[in-house]
Amino acid sequence: MEIGGAQIQVQPFPPKPQCLMTPPLPFKLTPPLLLRLRRRRLPDNNNHFRPGGYANQLKLNWLDSLTCPLPDDFGNPVSEGSDPGWVIGVDPDLSGALAVLKPDTSAQVFDSPHLKVLVGKGLRKRLDVKSIIQLLRDIDAPIGTTAYIEQSIPYPQDGKQGWWSGGFGYGLWIGILVASGYSVIPVPSLLWKNEFKLAGNRSTKDDSRELASALFPSTSSLLKRKKDHGRAEALLIAAYGKGLKANER
Amino acid sequence: MEIGGAQIQVQPFPPKPQCLMTPPLPFKLTPPLLLRLRRRRLPDNNNHFRPGGYANQLKLNWLDSLTCPLPDDFGNPVSEGSDPGWVIGVDPDLSGALAVLKPDTSAQVFDSPHLKVLVGKGLRKRLDVKSIIQLLRDIDAPIGTTAYIEQSIPYPQDGKQGWWSGGFGYGLWIGILVASGYSVIPVPSLLWKNEFKLAGNRSTKDDSRELASALFPSTSSLLKRKKDHGRAEALLIAAYGKGLKANER
Repeated sequence: MEIGGAQIQVQPFPPKPQCLMTPPLPFKLTPPLLLRLRRRRLPDNNNHFRPGGYANQLKLNWLDSLTCPLPDDFGNPVSEGSDPGWVIGVDPDLSGALAVLKPDTSAQVFDSPHLKVLVGKGLRKRLDVKSIIQLLRDIDAPIGTTAYIEQSIPYPQDGKQGWWSGGFGYGLWIGILVASGYSVIPVPSLLWKNEFKLAGNRSTKDDSRELASALFPSTSSLLKRKKDHGRAEALLIAAYGKGLKANER
Repeated sequence: MEIGGAQIQVQPFPPKPQCLMTPPLPFKLTPPLLLRLRRRRLPDNNNHFRPGGYANQLKLNWLDSLTCPLPDDFGNPVSEGSDPGWVIGVDPDLSGALAVLKPDTSAQVFDSPHLKVLVGKGLRKRLDVKSIIQLLRDIDAPIGTTAYIEQSIPYPQDGKQGWWSGGFGYGLWIGILVASGYSVIPVPSLLWKNEFKLAGNRSTKDDSRELASALFPSTSSLLKRKKDHGRAEALLIAAYGKGLKANER
């Protein structure tokens, strides 16, 4: 398939099993940048005195604040090291979605639940808090499962109300996810889009849908309409988190 | 005491018990506006056709989305009707705080935990997600306890970054609170400030600290500095939620 002018070869997820007893790894696992960053958290006495080291430490502190599980009542972390087969992807926009990749290699995607509220005299969409919590509860992923969420970076041309809404949705998702037992890793959109050659002006939202359909054929019927791009992005953010690759030919 | 030019008489919380076995109600319970609104949720077939009714319905839908407890695995709401003696108050600003009023009439207040993050090349404060969750867990209030949170209404003169941050903190608090089992009721600042005669230009943040100290004498040592106004506001938001009154002489 062609995305952004480049020929891309995708490996569908799940791939056809070649052997029922010893299935091959269905994808190449490359920990994303933030996970690699996390591994560098070894003692470094000069850390605080190097500007890069301090910035790194601040980022690690923030990531640590988004990490579940919390310690139990005796101060011990509970069920550390959850099943890496589970990955959540979240596009936190109002028209966004939540994707789930499970250890059985199945993929699911859900539109973000929302409702209407009055702001001044105008009707606006807002994320439906209780329904999101219920959705996460129904998914029933192990405590500590990692949820990759697209980092909220508002467009400079957006109005103040747009900036407020962007911050609100992003904060709401993070709060719900961590309090529900997920470890959250924010991913700048450029990072996952670069991984899948979706960055730049030549790529469209249709490309996202096409790539997500190719990676997760079982969801393709859910990705047919233009407005399904939130679903596609949630799937691709999860795919990025899982280390799935779309290799150039 | 004088606040905003008016003589105010406050009833300290907790009041001195007059009788150990049958203590008098320590304050006049007046459900705040939003609770009264909630009671009007009786069937009204024409509700959707009257503009006021529709606006009301939208507000109720939003409040319902912020209400714990969620149904259990069998679809039944769990521990509905929690102990009204517990009330949480939250000033969601970065320099805000969380206040707890307990059935034993004790009051506690905690600064909002925060950490530093890099935004561009600048250092900024951000709410510490994990520490907030841990704090709420330590408070150990019954599921369904109501948390009153000041509604985020950014100042028009604030920059876009300020609008984003205001939305982020507000969304984060709401997400954490509801996912942690609290029912959230947003309160516009004018509502609780009017109740305590703190609205208008003549009232200062010092007045908030003075009033909170008078209502909750046990916390007065925590309200001595100018920068303790976030603590005072969290206490007053909780007091408003509980229906405490500061009667004019």
